[in-house]
Amino acid sequence: MPPAESVLPFDDIRNLVRSMPDADEAAAAAVRARDAELTKPAGSLGRLETLAEWLASWQGKAPPTVDRPLVAIFAGNHGVVARGVSAFPGAVTQQMVENFAAGGAAINQICLTLDLGLKVFDLGLDVPTGDITVEAAMDEVACARAMAFGMEATAGGIDLLCVGEMGIGNTTVAAAIFNALYGGPAVEWVGPGTGLDASGIERKAAAVEAALDVHRNGLSDPLEVLRRVGGREVAAMAGAILAARHGRIPVIVDGYVATSAAAVIHAMDAGAIDHCLFGHLSTEPGHRRALDRMGRRPLLDLDMRLGEGSGAALAAGIVRSAARVHAGMATFSQAGVSGKEG
Amino acid sequence: MPPAESVLPFDDIRNLVRSMPDADEAAAAAVRARDAELTKPAGSLGRLETLAEWLASWQGKAPPTVDRPLVAIFAGNHGVVARGVSAFPGAVTQQMVENFAAGGAAINQICLTLDLGLKVFDLGLDVPTGDITVEAAMDEVACARAMAFGMEATAGGIDLLCVGEMGIGNTTVAAAIFNALYGGPAVEWVGPGTGLDASGIERKAAAVEAALDVHRNGLSDPLEVLRRVGGREVAAMAGAILAARHGRIPVIVDGYVATSAAAVIHAMDAGAIDHCLFGHLSTEPGHRRALDRMGRRPLLDLDMRLGEGSGAALAAGIVRSAARVHAGMATFSQAGVSGKEG
Repeated sequence: MPPAESVLPFDDIRNLVRSMPDADEAAAAAVRARDAELTKPAGSLGRLETLAEWLASWQGKAPPTVDRPLVAIFAGNHGVVARGVSAFPGAVTQQMVENFAAGGAAINQICLTLDLGLKVFDLGLDVPTGDITVEAAMDEVACARAMAFGMEATAGGIDLLCVGEMGIGNTTVAAAIFNALYGGPAVEWVGPGTGLDASGIERKAAAVEAALDVHRNGLSDPLEVLRRVGGREVAAMAGAILAARHGRIPVIVDGYVATSAAAVIHAMDAGAIDHCLFGHLSTEPGHRRALDRMGRRPLLDLDMRLGEGSGAALAAGIVRSAARVHAGMATFSQAGVSGKEG
Repeated sequence: MPPAESVLPFDDIRNLVRSMPDADEAAAAAVRARDAELTKPAGSLGRLETLAEWLASWQGKAPPTVDRPLVAIFAGNHGVVARGVSAFPGAVTQQMVENFAAGGAAINQICLTLDLGLKVFDLGLDVPTGDITVEAAMDEVACARAMAFGMEATAGGIDLLCVGEMGIGNTTVAAAIFNALYGGPAVEWVGPGTGLDASGIERKAAAVEAALDVHRNGLSDPLEVLRRVGGREVAAMAGAILAARHGRIPVIVDGYVATSAAAVIHAMDAGAIDHCLFGHLSTEPGHRRALDRMGRRPLLDLDMRLGEGSGAALAAGIVRSAARVHAGMATFSQAGVSGKEG
């Protein structure tokens, strides 16, 4: 019989991380071979070329496709909002979820423009998570359930997943996650979020400090970090990232908060997010710092800090172009174009 | 009676520069006012917000539209190719024009993916321009004709113009233009282009030096720079940029070579390219230097150096998203979303 703890939910998550499929090197090699024959100078498409190879290696097929891309928005509410850490009231999370449903948000227009699917996952908005400055955000069962809920985003035959979020207060929990994983003073991880003034940012830093102090003896395990100072939508994004790896679906991670979910998985196993692209650099100041810790270069830098998957969705337009260019271009011999001289 | 030289073609061009319409400040103000009401934190869409304002101010309408975007590729051949300045033979220009027509090039796939129109303008490919290391590329009439031909790209009711090019040897003429306008050693302006090795780059720098020496007494006037060390497709792009300003069509300039056309207009009047966005940063090393001279930050940085409008077209996907987001989002009051507190 296995030891009792092996049936706890977090052990199931750990097993998912341990059993992840590797990159398909044959698919990647096939992309490189075809790329060398396409009617363009070698290397001239830069990141479009590496994106096509990345897509193929994680989809496990060459040429890769971006025919059914999905933007998944995970929405959660946070007890820490009571600490005055957001410029907007907590009710806005639910209101924005209704705005997504009605088609009135920025992400709706981006998805229409770029022909991306959109699904919104409501993670118990009527019951905010615990206030991380005094208690854990979730117990283990709730955290694992949120992760499992997030895994549902990979259903439906999608071939690219953009991971985004909505949750008043969630740049505070993201800052707490980064601070717990990477250390340093709290002020290095907090920023204006939706538009805090200087005193609001001070409150936010104080909340992160308080949370790290309260949970100081329970932050050595990344899943415990997620459970104690995270939130349901962050857990759901972490679950979506893991399920996508198993489902051979490349992932585009949105901004600061979505990156905190990726950072939890990365802290468990650095290779576990190799199927993830970071869509853009947020102006939230801790985002660059977090990406540097993971050694990642985001695709876009458009001074955005909206969340709701908006940066990932714009990146998906580039990624889809990369796939179509790779699959659809003519070769030198097909087009009768002369190759490089000398 | 006007003096005789006033009827020369270049004076017509100068008059077009002098008589350019200004930005529509009322349209820009209307965009800012609407933006402040949209269901997002103020400023959170970053460059998407400034792009919407930029579109409106140059289209002269709010909200702006990107319903009929066009990628225009101008193709030309260059006598300087005889100096061994390209990794590909000059015949490739014509072959790639045929590849564009057959749908086999990268730009075809990008335009299909992002729903952009595409037109290719052939500027006398069977007669290369003069070898700039020994003579002027064009006489004044030929240069003005090429500019006038480029102006035709703005026809057809388009509301966004992406300016790109194809022309074996044209990174050499672009380098010569930048060097003539901005000075410095030739090596600072040349790069590998389509894939030159180190000795090829030396030949290219020597060609640029030779061209600047031959034409040293005729490079104080930007239009003379264009005529003497430029090329027909560069002249056509300069014409397209000017005509777009008069036609209230915002322009996205592609990479290194397209930027040299914008630099000629910029040198005539720095404000004359305010309706232009630089779509991406090319890896051709002189591109960043040229953009710095004009004080411009490109939208994308994807390590690309293909030309054929590819970087501008990818940027158009972002710009179109910006327009749709601005026009289509709900306001706080429409969506019943609470505003910022405090």
